[in-house]
Order: sequence, then structure tokens, then C-alpha cells
Amino acid sequence: MIRVAVDGMGGDYAPQFVVEGAVNAANDFPNLEIVLVGQLNALKRELNRHKVLGGKIVIEEATEVVGMGESPVASIKKKKNSSIAVCIDLLKRKEVDAVMTAGNTGAAVAGATLRLGLLPGIKRPGIAISTPTMQGISIAVDVGANLNPSSEELFQYALMAESYARCIHRKKRPSIGLLNIGEEESKGTDILREAYKLLRESQLNFIGNIEGRDFFTGKADCIICDGFVGNVVLKMCESVLETSMVIISRELKKNPVTMLGAWLCKPAMSSIRKQTNYEEAGGAPLLGVDGTVIISHGISSAKAIRNAIRVAGDMVEKNLNTHIVEQVNNHAAQLSNHAAEKARE
Amino acid sequence: MIRVAVDGMGGDYAPQFVVEGAVNAANDFPNLEIVLVGQLNALKRELNRHKVLGGKIVIEEATEVVGMGESPVASIKKKKNSSIAVCIDLLKRKEVDAVMTAGNTGAAVAGATLRLGLLPGIKRPGIAISTPTMQGISIAVDVGANLNPSSEELFQYALMAESYARCIHRKKRPSIGLLNIGEEESKGTDILREAYKLLRESQLNFIGNIEGRDFFTGKADCIICDGFVGNVVLKMCESVLETSMVIISRELKKNPVTMLGAWLCKPAMSSIRKQTNYEEAGGAPLLGVDGTVIISHGISSAKAIRNAIRVAGDMVEKNLNTHIVEQVNNHAAQLSNHAAEKARE
Repeated sequence: MIRVAVDGMGGDYAPQFVVEGAVNAANDFPNLEIVLVGQLNALKRELNRHKVLGGKIVIEEATEVVGMGESPVASIKKKKNSSIAVCIDLLKRKEVDAVMTAGNTGAAVAGATLRLGLLPGIKRPGIAISTPTMQGISIAVDVGANLNPSSEELFQYALMAESYARCIHRKKRPSIGLLNIGEEESKGTDILREAYKLLRESQLNFIGNIEGRDFFTGKADCIICDGFVGNVVLKMCESVLETSMVIISRELKKNPVTMLGAWLCKPAMSSIRKQTNYEEAGGAPLLGVDGTVIISHGISSAKAIRNAIRVAGDMVEKNLNTHIVEQVNNHAAQLSNHAAEKARE
Repeated sequence: MIRVAVDGMGGDYAPQFVVEGAVNAANDFPNLEIVLVGQLNALKRELNRHKVLGGKIVIEEATEVVGMGESPVASIKKKKNSSIAVCIDLLKRKEVDAVMTAGNTGAAVAGATLRLGLLPGIKRPGIAISTPTMQGISIAVDVGANLNPSSEELFQYALMAESYARCIHRKKRPSIGLLNIGEEESKGTDILREAYKLLRESQLNFIGNIEGRDFFTGKADCIICDGFVGNVVLKMCESVLETSMVIISRELKKNPVTMLGAWLCKPAMSSIRKQTNYEEAGGAPLLGVDGTVIISHGISSAKAIRNAIRVAGDMVEKNLNTHIVEQVNNHAAQLSNHAAEKARE
């Protein structure tokens, strides 16, 4: 049985959607047990509105809440009894196997990094997101934890993303693309050129630089980028479908023939919506910390929460962190040679 | 009469599409005269395939060509008789009023910056792109000239974008948004926080930070960003429609009912395609250099070339650069106070 601590108070629609998603996960996945963390009364009240099969949800009290707008590091240091801090402490004490939160992203990153520490050899954690493409699914790292990564950090993001694509997306030899402003090796900043070199000399299946458009085409299984551009692009992707639908339906309503056409197309449209729905992908793992932590969007629906919990269970079951450590070890010599070379320059 | 020098050899489909676009511009816009620059035989051969009304195209010889993959600064220094270098020299000598090229972007930026110099007070040039939104059109600066702008440079991009939105997009009091990873003032890097402060204290209509999704929503008339994220996002935008159409038609072809529906929707779809078509917007002005220079995508169609030439004429007619210099002058005191403050810290 895999135990997942769920931050019951985190997210724009907490505790309502979080509890509903947790209940659905508990009922749908026989190998999961949920520890709902937060204010007792609020969680009990929500829990009473649902039917949980087989007592697979327990509540753990946390009296405080970190708000969505609070300063990450300050709040995590001050509010020792917040739902996110208690979740992470449960993981630290190994009373649970994973943590899922839809609360303040910065607080989750800071809390996990400070209290759990990093996996051996890892320099900085990165947030990963699974993104639907024309060819299936890709993973992008980082999408918001590290706005100015070094070339070595970008390289380690590739190592972690590759492990994720192998273990969770079940890809045999995932391809790695470095997000840049052109395909040529000479493009971009010094940091990107150095990361390109590290990737090319590694044992990874590096396919070179990729461009903005490749977020949709699925050219690379793993998209490596800094947290700033990753975050901007992620938020664009999320809005593309929504915006397209608004534009299209506005246009279709202009005359009865196209309205009929739209009605006939409906089944195809919902199929597309499902394929490209971020709710299906479920949450963003914080890779590189010593523990399994999934961060969901603040606006997550119950379905998104359920799927994020599923991914957390999957990461534990497949021992993702063991694979990451192995991958980092395999490339440790390369990184230290690179550092020595840079020091000589 | 406004004279526009057109780089006849620049672009993936040069000289064919460039000449066709130039001919269309000459025929469609009575106030424009085109100086086609490049290899005589190649240009004459293409020109002979079209009918030009009223002799509004002349040819100027340039024997060399800068390839799309060549190093920008090196090629501009070495190939003094390349089509792009000759175009810029014509502008420098005021024999033309503007330059349009679909060739090597880096060479165009380097050539224009080195030979024309910058407008008084401007620190770095920026590439601007007009982007279709749900509410009409916005302008984004920078999309590739400056990968690591300072806060002062970002601020000047706002001043230039605002002038463009007023003069060319004819907006009364254009709103300015700073592309960031969250709306709060505290978000992003130190440089972005400083740019936020400069913008807030200025006379501009600054609406704060905007996020990736706002590229489509049209929340801001002017989107200010560094050239790296701007370029990535631009290339994503360009592919969104194309990719959506592939996904949608693949899905619609799965059964006869949705195929009929799709056929009925066709007129609405072409209307959307027209609204969101980058060909309509026409080229990317290089703002901040002392002269009017428009850079078009290497894959530009004849229609895109025609529209880029139209925009070049528009910029000259509306005296955009005079407005930019005025705007920069109006904010010069603010920038120098800011610099003095920073020096004291």
C-alpha cells in the first residue's frame, strides 16, 4: 500500500475539490491510501459529503494554512503547523511515501527543498510538467522552480526528465531537446551553448536544440528549459485550447449553416479536448528533492487532483528517485570533468 | 513617394516570393516605390514574370548574398556588397526611406545597428512583432535581438512599443504589460522587478505583469519581454493554428457525420485563419535603430512580404522614429535618476 499525504487546504478551491479528488483517487486506485492534511472540521465536513470505500482515507490535523499569495520561504519557516509543512514532515518521517499539494507553489518548493533536502548529487530541484503533444505526451523541466539555471543544472534537468520519461511515460529511449531560439548549436546564451555541449557529450539521446513550436509537435520526449521560459510557455499551452474554442464558437455562431456544422463536429471536439486536457496529465512533480512531491495548479479540479495523486503513486511504485540517482551517478564523472575544465579556463 | 529598399536575395524562397511580394506592394500601394536589391540576372528573371504598373520598381545591384546560416557580425563585415549591406547603405545615404528583408535576422540586426547607429538615447534595438489576439492586435518587443536585456532596456522597449501601438496600430492610450511568471510585483528576476518599478513610475499606461496566456487574450496592447522568451513564444504562436488544424482535421476525418460538419464549418474556419494569420501582420520592425528597418520571417510568402513592405511605408509616413525619440526624451530624466539611485546603492 502506497500512502500519499494530500494538502487538504492548498488550492483555490480547497478543501472542496481537493477532498473530492482525494476520495476519487482512494476509490479508484486500490494500491493507494490517502492521508488528508488540514483543519479537522473543514476536512470532515467535506469528507462527509462523499462515500469512501474501505476506509482508505485518514485525516491528519494541521491548524495553519499558507495562503496562495504568501512569501514562500517566510511562510514555510513561520507556519510550522501549516498543511503543507505537516505533509512534508510526514514524508520526512517516512509516515507517507509521497505528498500532493495544489497550494502555494513557492512554499511547496521551499518546504520540500529545506526539509527533505536534495537527492545525492543534485544541484537544484526542477518542476516537471507532462504536456500533451501531437504525438502523445512529453515532459518539460523546469517550469518555474529555477529562473536562472546554470548549464550544469539544465544538464541535470535532462537527466531527471529522461528518467521520468522512461519510468512514468514508459518510453524506451526518450529523446532530449534543449529549448532555444534556433536549431544551430551556436544559438542562444552562453549557458545554453554550454548545456548543449554537455548534452551532446553525454549518453543521453540528445536531438539538439528545439524551438517554441516543438511544444506541440512532440519532437522531443523531454523538453529542457529554464524555469522562466518554461513557466510562460506552460501558461500559454494551458490557454491555447480555451482561447481557440472561444474564437471558434464566436465565429461559428454567426450563421445557421456553420452552427449546424459545429453541432455535427461536437463529438470530435470533445475527443480533442480530452487528448489535450491538462487535467488528464495530473500535476507537476518536483524533481530532485529527496522524496516524492507533486505540485498541482491552484485552480485544479477534482479530476486534476485525482490524477496528480495517481502520478504520485506511480512515481513511488516505479522508484523514480532511485533511477534519477543512478542516472546522475552515471554522469557524475562527465560533470566533474566539465567543472575542472571550466576552472582551468 | 516613399522609397523602400527590398532585400531581393534574403529569405528561404528568395528571390521568387520576395519579388512577387514587392511587385504586389508596388501595384497595391500608390505611395510606395520599390528598390529591389540583389543579383541583376536573378532579379530581372523574376521581375519579367510579373506586370508592374507605372514603373514603380527599380533594381539596384548587389553581387553577394548572406546565407541564412552565416554568422551575423562576420558576414556583415566581410560581405560589403551583399544585398542586405547594400540595402542598409542606401538607407544610410537616404536614397531610400526604409529597408525590408526576409534574410538572415542576425545579419540585418548587426548591419542596421553598426551602420545606421541607434536613435538618440536608445541603449539597444529590439525586434517588434504584431500578434493577433482575441481583441484585435498587440505588439510584443523584444522577440530575438536581445536575449539578456537590462531593466533599462526593457523599459525602453516599452517606450518604443507604446509609440508603435499609437502610431501604427492607432491606439489612443496603449496599455503596457510586462511578461512575467505571475501577476504580483514580487515575481520574476531582479531585472524584471526593477523594470516593473520603472514602468510603474513612468507616464505610461502600465497594467502590471502579464502571463503567457495573455499573448492570446490581448490583455495588453504592448507586451514587453526579453528576446529569448519572446522568440520562443512567437514561434509557438505561429505554430498554434497550424497544429490545431492538423489535430482537428485528423479527428474530424474519423467519421462521415463529423466530416459533413467540418465541411459546413469551412467558411468560419477560413475567417479565423485570416484573423490569426501572421502573413496579415507583415514583418517585424527593428525598433531603436536610426532608420526604418523591417525584418520578415525567412519562410515569408509573397503576401507576407507585401504586407511587410506596407508596414515599412506606414512607419515612414507616420514618422514613428520621431515619436520614439520624443517618448525617450520625455522619460530621460526618470532613467537618469534611476541610474543615479542604483549607483548610490
